Amino acid sequence: MSTVLHSGMSNALHAVEVIGVVVFAISGFVEARQKKMDLVGVFTVAFITAFGGGTLRDILLDRRPLFWVEHQEYPILIFALVICATPFFRHLRAAVADKAIIYADALGLGLFSVNGASLAVEAHMPAFVCIMMGVITGIFGGVLRDMICNEIPLVFRRGHLYATCAFLGCSVFLIANFLHAGQSVAILSGILTTLVLRVLAVRFNMSLP
Amino acid sequence: MSTVLHSGMSNALHAVEVIGVVVFAISGFVEARQKKMDLVGVFTVAFITAFGGGTLRDILLDRRPLFWVEHQEYPILIFALVICATPFFRHLRAAVADKAIIYADALGLGLFSVNGASLAVEAHMPAFVCIMMGVITGIFGGVLRDMICNEIPLVFRRGHLYATCAFLGCSVFLIANFLHAGQSVAILSGILTTLVLRVLAVRFNMSLP
Amino acid sequence: MSTVLHSGMSNALHAVEVIGVVVFAISGFVEARQKKMDLVGVFTVAFITAFGGGTLRDILLDRRPLFWVEHQEYPILIFALVICATPFFRHLRAAVADKAIIYADALGLGLFSVNGASLAVEAHMPAFVCIMMGVITGIFGGVLRDMICNEIPLVFRRGHLYATCAFLGCSVFLIANFLHAGQSVAILSGILTTLVLRVLAVRFNMSLP
Repeated sequence: MSTVLHSGMSNALHAVEVIGVVVFAISGFVEARQKKMDLVGVFTVAFITAFGGGTLRDILLDRRPLFWVEHQEYPILIFALVICATPFFRHLRAAVADKAIIYADALGLGLFSVNGASLAVEAHMPAFVCIMMGVITGIFGGVLRDMICNEIPLVFRRGHLYATCAFLGCSVFLIANFLHAGQSVAILSGILTTLVLRVLAVRFNMSLP
Repeated sequence: MSTVLHSGMSNALHAVEVIGVVVFAISGFVEARQKKMDLVGVFTVAFITAFGGGTLRDILLDRRPLFWVEHQEYPILIFALVICATPFFRHLRAAVADKAIIYADALGLGLFSVNGASLAVEAHMPAFVCIMMGVITGIFGGVLRDMICNEIPLVFRRGHLYATCAFLGCSVFLIANFLHAGQSVAILSGILTTLVLRVLAVRFNMSLP
Repeated sequence: MSTVLHSGMSNALHAVEVIGVVVFAISGFVEARQKKMDLVGVFTVAFITAFGGGTLRDILLDRRPLFWVEHQEYPILIFALVICATPFFRHLRAAVADKAIIYADALGLGLFSVNGASLAVEAHMPAFVCIMMGVITGIFGGVLRDMICNEIPLVFRRGHLYATCAFLGCSVFLIANFLHAGQSVAILSGILTTLVLRVLAVRFNMSLP
């Protein structure tokens, strides 16, 4: 999930990426707890929410080894988080502001999507497929989370724009790429587009027909 | 989904294949609309219904690049269809005769299944696995559609024969292949068997125990 | 699912492995029948329960050809089982003691998990990922079974320890491996740990928070 970002960009982005993973894992954690799953279920759902999108993208593009297979720090981090967070679940929900979760999730969505699109560009995929890979990376963790929790995926139900923000963010990234903007510029503008659109969508109740 | 058909057979089959993709996509479109999904959900479900079976087969056989990754026309076609069809959904349902959908779907099932089986033959799989790959290609798009829409997959519930038609069609294809019939003959007899069995199954209410 | 066991160990283990496959297939068979699926659905669910975990592991590790693709005896065996067992379903349930199923399933869990972990060790994965691959091999067949049958996966709901037994069994296997115990010793201690823990968990109603 990070080759491109690591090599092309600063450590700041790496830190933000860890935040994205943690935020996505927390959203899995919360949904699994609400379904009254036990520790194993909570860990699995948190893990799949954080890494499902990137893993599906890598399987579709045949990239190996998978990100989390190479870096066992990530699964161990989520494992530790789940064990530590379980006893404090109620307090945790109360402590974290909903707004903070929405911002962090929007940032994670931007990072994951643009990173997925840039990996597809590196693999010489056609443009529309690059955008799809970006969106898949951004949203499929949540889709798998909802499928396991026996719900119709949240991103497919009518609600505030979500996948659409990733779609437009990845499009901006690809256009910037096509115009030979520097890689950092392309990546940052893609991430910012996704982030800002998502925050606006929540703020102004925007949704698709 | 088309290498074999393209090289071995005429353009007519290619046209029919596009029809198969479109029919499968429409069945995803209809189910997603009934679940009140938004545009993103409808596109995703339509796409997965059309390409899910072939994608799963390619992942299991480790064939890359995936068909729709190489030919971005297909995802773009479905994207355009979904955007154009959404405003006319009600009229669309009324305009297309149920019978036409059943015929087109039976044709799509035959094409996808026999094509899947012939790709497995090319990859030197054992006979029973070739038949399974054919059936997977034909039915798994619908299975994934139903899993995302939070339903028990239609093809597994008691109803008119469906997967069984694909199973027998692929068996006919493999037997014809084994007897060294020409490839066109083998493919056509497989597709026809599936198509005719499926239409008969609907016509005479045939189902499995 | 068997390369390591075959080469490193005796035919006895191979026989036990077939039992594991059959037990897992039966659990899929029973759940699919309870959902009133037809023959195709019952076969698919039985098959996915038996091979889903190993297939997912092989896709994640990029191992090909898949076990059941190479050995068509296994899908044919399950196909024959399903056809033979369908008419006798009611009698079958009465004839097989629940206790026997729990023991056989615990044995299957141990075999599948430790075999999955040992394949990951062979592929030079980091330790925590090896344990995860073991647990995935052991439990994901059942997870996919429950997802297709439109249930929240049994192993994630609160109940007797299940995945945890596989987790600890794989840990014992890895520790034995790390201490350079012979391979047979490591494998057997891993399987035994899983089996004994699982039987104790059912016997003494042990569960996770």
